Amino acid sequence: VRVAPRSATFIALSGLPEVQRGADLAALIESAMRAQSLSAQTHDVFVLAQKIVSKAEGRTVALARVTPSAEAQRLAAVTRKDPRLVEVILSESEAVVRAAPHVLIVRHRLGFVMANAGVDRSNLSADATEDEVLLLPSDPDGAAARLHRELTERFGVALGVLISDSFGRPFRRGVVNVALGVAGVPALIDRRGERDRRGRALEITEVAFADALAAGAALVMGEAAESTPVVLARGLDLSAPASDGRSLLRPLGEDLFQ
Amino acid sequence: VRVAPRSATFIALSGLPEVQRGADLAALIESAMRAQSLSAQTHDVFVLAQKIVSKAEGRTVALARVTPSAEAQRLAAVTRKDPRLVEVILSESEAVVRAAPHVLIVRHRLGFVMANAGVDRSNLSADATEDEVLLLPSDPDGAAARLHRELTERFGVALGVLISDSFGRPFRRGVVNVALGVAGVPALIDRRGERDRRGRALEITEVAFADALAAGAALVMGEAAESTPVVLARGLDLSAPASDGRSLLRPLGEDLFQ
Repeated sequence: VRVAPRSATFIALSGLPEVQRGADLAALIESAMRAQSLSAQTHDVFVLAQKIVSKAEGRTVALARVTPSAEAQRLAAVTRKDPRLVEVILSESEAVVRAAPHVLIVRHRLGFVMANAGVDRSNLSADATEDEVLLLPSDPDGAAARLHRELTERFGVALGVLISDSFGRPFRRGVVNVALGVAGVPALIDRRGERDRRGRALEITEVAFADALAAGAALVMGEAAESTPVVLARGLDLSAPASDGRSLLRPLGEDLFQ
Repeated sequence: VRVAPRSATFIALSGLPEVQRGADLAALIESAMRAQSLSAQTHDVFVLAQKIVSKAEGRTVALARVTPSAEAQRLAAVTRKDPRLVEVILSESEAVVRAAPHVLIVRHRLGFVMANAGVDRSNLSADATEDEVLLLPSDPDGAAARLHRELTERFGVALGVLISDSFGRPFRRGVVNVALGVAGVPALIDRRGERDRRGRALEITEVAFADALAAGAALVMGEAAESTPVVLARGLDLSAPASDGRSLLRPLGEDLFQ
């Protein structure tokens, strides 16, 4: 029987510099931990906003260099977005789920169903040109796995890494953060076979643990000028088998709500 | 400028007894806090699993007393569920969103799009009869508001209350907790007009703060035999205007993903 932990704490890491292309995120995180007099403990999880991973990967695109296709121009008219931005979004997508004024929901080439393929204009560095946009990391699970190795080596304890982004949801208003890339953390926990107090099988069979962790971390992460893009989560039960961010994607054709 | 808090902590309250019909939840929470040597602080939020609120309200239904309608029998055949259970689900619903083998997604009469209208067979009290099921609280926002008044009076500080349940999601696997009823907490935060580091308007306009809070609390709440149905969240920034759980429901016809 797994016993739920009594408490968990989310700590925003302050003092991270603006992340530049080629930045060593593990080194920046180690410095920020030291500056905050924090030492890593076994089962700590570092939750990173996807933007700093994308910035370190240099995933910016200058719209001035983009030539929109006919399809991008058509969708730009429908969505009232910049045709060059729509071209970039389409280049990151495998299907358009919904296009309407100010709304462009796609299935990202990595499987995420999300607005604008995660392409974002805000929170670029202070010296970015006005028309630069930022794509998602090229491989969030791969980036999480690499950071997991690097941070585990730097700190010498078993850690988890999660790369998160904010998503809108069908049926409910507002964004919540979810996990894009995961390493060293049980992203999806299979609870089949577990029992309630009466010994009856739980009706819930799978728990999106990494999405809950991303959502909780966002409570101290912030979105705006005061944003702290790395949050340390401490005290969590990571005893279930680790899985990656892809395990959270419902396969096409399995969607229960359509 | 609102400054994100540096840290937030989720503490599971242990030692709550099985909740019976008519139970005084505020009194039970106060006792559990005292037993755990915790005193409430301003802006603490109590996150309750909906099950204990429903149990206190006596929202159980004995399936032996239910006569399924023709529509319930038809849907039971499609979903391979007990026709009496389907009848109870339909009695709580205003529309069926999806019916398939082992799947019955509805729009609950309160507006939640969810599986089985939240009707649950697990985690009933040890002396429940085998065929009893538990409905959602009759008015989660009303229950949250009443608990908010009672707990604020007992503890003498400004608190928040959130009643949560686990929901499946379109497009993503696994359940996460969301907020059904909210009082004293900014359920949905309007961030229009806020700026990023460069002074550019944020692309995100609404943050589902209470859903993130419910998700984070579930990390220490547990689902099974060891479940602790009340979690104390401490350290959150509750400075945005309070709103209720209903504010998180996307109005019919406004859904962006369909």
